[in-house]
Amino acid sequence: MVRKKMYGVDFEPIGRRGQCQEGQSLFDCAQKLGIELVSICGGKGTCGKCRVQILASSTSEPTSAEQGILRRHELEAGYRLACQTYLLGDCKVGVPPESLTTPQRAQVEGLQVDVTPNPPVLSYDLELSPPSLSDYEADAERMVEALARQHRVSCRRIDINILRELSTKLRAWGWKLRASVRGDEIIALGTVSSHNLGLAIDLGTTKVAGYLLDLDTGKVLSSKGIMNPQITCGEDVISRIARARSSPDEAAHLQQLAANALNQLALDLCAEIKAEPPDIVEIVVVGNTAMQHLFLSLPVEQLALSPYVPAVKRALDIKACELGLCVASGGYVHLLPNIAGFVGADHVAMLLATDVRRAKGLLVALDIGTNTEVCLVDNGKMSSVSCASGPAFEGAHIKHGMRGASGAIEHIQIAGDKVEIQTIGGELPVGICGSGVLDAIAQLYVAGVLEAKGKMQKNHQRVRIYQDETEFVLVSEKERDGKQAITITQKDVREVQLAKAAIRTGIQVLLEHSERTEDEIEQVIIAGAFGSYLNVASAVTIGMFPPLSLNRFRQVGNAAGMGAKLALISMDKRAEAQVIANQVDYVELAVAPRFSQTFAQANYLGRYRIAHGRREEID
Amino acid sequence: MVRKKMYGVDFEPIGRRGQCQEGQSLFDCAQKLGIELVSICGGKGTCGKCRVQILASSTSEPTSAEQGILRRHELEAGYRLACQTYLLGDCKVGVPPESLTTPQRAQVEGLQVDVTPNPPVLSYDLELSPPSLSDYEADAERMVEALARQHRVSCRRIDINILRELSTKLRAWGWKLRASVRGDEIIALGTVSSHNLGLAIDLGTTKVAGYLLDLDTGKVLSSKGIMNPQITCGEDVISRIARARSSPDEAAHLQQLAANALNQLALDLCAEIKAEPPDIVEIVVVGNTAMQHLFLSLPVEQLALSPYVPAVKRALDIKACELGLCVASGGYVHLLPNIAGFVGADHVAMLLATDVRRAKGLLVALDIGTNTEVCLVDNGKMSSVSCASGPAFEGAHIKHGMRGASGAIEHIQIAGDKVEIQTIGGELPVGICGSGVLDAIAQLYVAGVLEAKGKMQKNHQRVRIYQDETEFVLVSEKERDGKQAITITQKDVREVQLAKAAIRTGIQVLLEHSERTEDEIEQVIIAGAFGSYLNVASAVTIGMFPPLSLNRFRQVGNAAGMGAKLALISMDKRAEAQVIANQVDYVELAVAPRFSQTFAQANYLGRYRIAHGRREEID
Repeated sequence: MVRKKMYGVDFEPIGRRGQCQEGQSLFDCAQKLGIELVSICGGKGTCGKCRVQILASSTSEPTSAEQGILRRHELEAGYRLACQTYLLGDCKVGVPPESLTTPQRAQVEGLQVDVTPNPPVLSYDLELSPPSLSDYEADAERMVEALARQHRVSCRRIDINILRELSTKLRAWGWKLRASVRGDEIIALGTVSSHNLGLAIDLGTTKVAGYLLDLDTGKVLSSKGIMNPQITCGEDVISRIARARSSPDEAAHLQQLAANALNQLALDLCAEIKAEPPDIVEIVVVGNTAMQHLFLSLPVEQLALSPYVPAVKRALDIKACELGLCVASGGYVHLLPNIAGFVGADHVAMLLATDVRRAKGLLVALDIGTNTEVCLVDNGKMSSVSCASGPAFEGAHIKHGMRGASGAIEHIQIAGDKVEIQTIGGELPVGICGSGVLDAIAQLYVAGVLEAKGKMQKNHQRVRIYQDETEFVLVSEKERDGKQAITITQKDVREVQLAKAAIRTGIQVLLEHSERTEDEIEQVIIAGAFGSYLNVASAVTIGMFPPLSLNRFRQVGNAAGMGAKLALISMDKRAEAQVIANQVDYVELAVAPRFSQTFAQANYLGRYRIAHGRREEID
Repeated sequence: MVRKKMYGVDFEPIGRRGQCQEGQSLFDCAQKLGIELVSICGGKGTCGKCRVQILASSTSEPTSAEQGILRRHELEAGYRLACQTYLLGDCKVGVPPESLTTPQRAQVEGLQVDVTPNPPVLSYDLELSPPSLSDYEADAERMVEALARQHRVSCRRIDINILRELSTKLRAWGWKLRASVRGDEIIALGTVSSHNLGLAIDLGTTKVAGYLLDLDTGKVLSSKGIMNPQITCGEDVISRIARARSSPDEAAHLQQLAANALNQLALDLCAEIKAEPPDIVEIVVVGNTAMQHLFLSLPVEQLALSPYVPAVKRALDIKACELGLCVASGGYVHLLPNIAGFVGADHVAMLLATDVRRAKGLLVALDIGTNTEVCLVDNGKMSSVSCASGPAFEGAHIKHGMRGASGAIEHIQIAGDKVEIQTIGGELPVGICGSGVLDAIAQLYVAGVLEAKGKMQKNHQRVRIYQDETEFVLVSEKERDGKQAITITQKDVREVQLAKAAIRTGIQVLLEHSERTEDEIEQVIIAGAFGSYLNVASAVTIGMFPPLSLNRFRQVGNAAGMGAKLALISMDKRAEAQVIANQVDYVELAVAPRFSQTFAQANYLGRYRIAHGRREEID
């Protein structure tokens, strides 16, 4: 009997990976790996609900059922029905949120900040008199004069695309229109009383969050998170930079993928409120420095080599059409300023949204990701570092890790031999997401299964050796009805130690830089997706954060997205972002004194203080 | 015996047309029509000198001789050797100046005006320190700081294309560079001490004149005139507008043709001084309103319909790359303002170059073309009209007309039965250009062959009836060794009458508008190609101009091109152009009082005054 081959299957953006059998349908693969795809027809290929996108594959050819349901451009873009697609080799699959029974947890909410709208673009309804032989003024000047006369608004410039459409539209609309003005430039035309919309984008490495706002009221009209399609070109910033450097075509492709994502969001968000993307007159994009560079087709070679300098730091205003975005023809994209090669506009946006520069006392604000940016604010004086914390908290490099999606174990409690787990959506467990991993390490340390240096002891009946590695069984094969056990391995522990040591070292380096100590920190602001769900007590228990009273920690959600929204609706906030970027003192971790001693100490589990590269246990 | 078919052949831009036999080589066709193409090999297809471009054709396929000499992209662009190309149907052929034994008269000289350069773009040599772990400033900010520190120049903006190339260039050039700054924006990068070039363009309907200038000194480094390749889409503005209206593709094609012409000029002019088009950091374009609209892809529907309003009038600054121009990546094209649908930026440029607004007394300034724009200046107060003078003075609609090229009869003297002619280049006569036609009508009127209403009398032995039309033989078949005679027909006379009546009416309407009379005109400034070569006495004799003393007329050459040069090197002159455009009082001829009476009177030949629609003979 010939045994069927096993192939690696990787479901994105949830980040669930595993081995599946040759010839299995992707629907079955997904189920095996704990991902519940929507299905009404039960795998007959008739309901079209289990749509997935093949990102890199060896799979079977589309069936006739698929050809009946999917449109040609969808098939060309790699869309398939999971129940009709069979594995012929390693495969990477994109799962659109609508194909998941429980949608992936999105980060589109965040802080609520009061701000008076002072938008970059104002729109004015106009009524013009048509030209005649006694009034042969040119169309553009006729509009500019009406703006001055009817609204006391003076415009010196008109976007060339607006000039190209003005004459036709004026005549089609019977000389009534709505003109959108940005500074002294007319950038959009619409019918009378049309929408005045803005789009705020948090361009993350994994996810792209979009918010559609009414620029006049500042209200969020719709919001949505989608996966960043650049994930097909590499999961992290470093691999995408390498891809972009490999050829100008690849760099252009990465730019287009980002633009496509923004266009898709614009379309979806507008559809929700029955508007059209050309109603969007301004876009604000925040992202890390590399994501911004790739989105703008800026060179990234120098970003990848020490001393990792950006091509440009300042805030930029670029015509949306120049970047391939299909919104108002003369609309701009505003990019918030960067601080350094690894401290980007998303960090600036987070500092803007949390308003830390106005806070009294000593604060830490941080956004945990593959790179974690930490800012120490000492009575308004800001200094920031970037720490290479790695992808462990996004579920990568963890044996049973996954991103925060349905069925992910997000919280863990170990009481004696019993392990209590809580999964996202209350589903049967299929893997562990970042907050679950963090809890697990903390609980194992408290239970004495992990000693301070992170070595796993064999003092618990759930500890076993499996495939030559020591691991702790969170959910056994038996508890999963024969499916593979979900465990935390010794190697997983090492990954988490590296990640949390990087973050703790970042905080320490900044404290030393400001000649302050951990005890003096009055507040720790934790932003970002992982930061919203992590158990702060666990984070303190493993020494990721200093041993402060828990009420000094504040989890604020997607602050970068909030910063983007603020910069979209308020020119004051936009100016403030540039002030923040200018004021932040960037500290280069690599050259910080006692960096390596501190990092070595921060590798320990437990509650302790660090000062001058020395660790002092507490309790 | 089967007689060979005859086909129409049209040689551009010289405008020589005629019938040639099927199967004749284009070289022979040209010779038959009096156009001398360069040839060294005597038609063997080996010297490659008789290069022409097929604009619309039925011709034979390229021979192997051609395939050996012409490059593939030349063949694809329709370039052929005239001696190897045989006529298979009607054909339109472009003759590059270098293929003519005597080059076509170019209009690239013009007025010389003293102006202190105050250019839009300034260039600065910079030397930067490379980044290090202790100095990790971003590349763009490093450059901006060096500009501020080394040259006290403050820049707020950097062109996105510059940002895209900066990092690579800085490193390739060892951190030394030349930055070009326009206002507060960095728009070009070069090696240290590279050129700071500007390109002034007079975008005419038939010809495009280009001037390459050193922006720092204001000196003209090279200049060249080429045919406007849009001529393949129609010879005049009206037919090109119709073409552009027919489909967006056609409009885009017209735009590309104009951009191609500018790119070709940039390449040729730079080659002459061993520079490269990216050294060009600023372009100024002047043209009539329709040419500008077509060049900018602006809509032209409303230009073609009463009341003929432009999409936009004001001066525009547009990124060169946005218009398909291959110069410095962040360079701008500045377009001078228009006044009305048929009074364009070329008129403004002419008024700028002639500085009429500062002149005391009463002046007329005009540029004769298919449309003739006339400006009356009354102690600085300017009013302008546009007259539909038609193409007669460009040699079109005239039986033996041609543009001003080698062999064209440019001056004529009739003494008794003898006709003395002078041809361009002293060549054997092949046709008549505008100034020759004008002379002919004047001389025929003086000789009594034409009476005041323009009817040709049969009182001269050179008058004959040929193919049912009365005509005057300038060069007989015998004088041309058996070739077709060159004549002025009754119909030609009517064409000239319409043209000159339009111009005279324009002058009259403006005088009445200003409540002034012809006698009060102190100076008539005649600009443009035809205006440079016309015999003023002849123009007065036929009543095209008022009967003023000849010393009141001044022929100034290509004043529009001169205006473009001034606006290129001086921001003051550029600002003045906008002031001129704002100040000019546009007079709509169609609604002027007594327009039709005046036009009827102006149709007469002879020296006379006109006032209030009445003609008063003098002498």
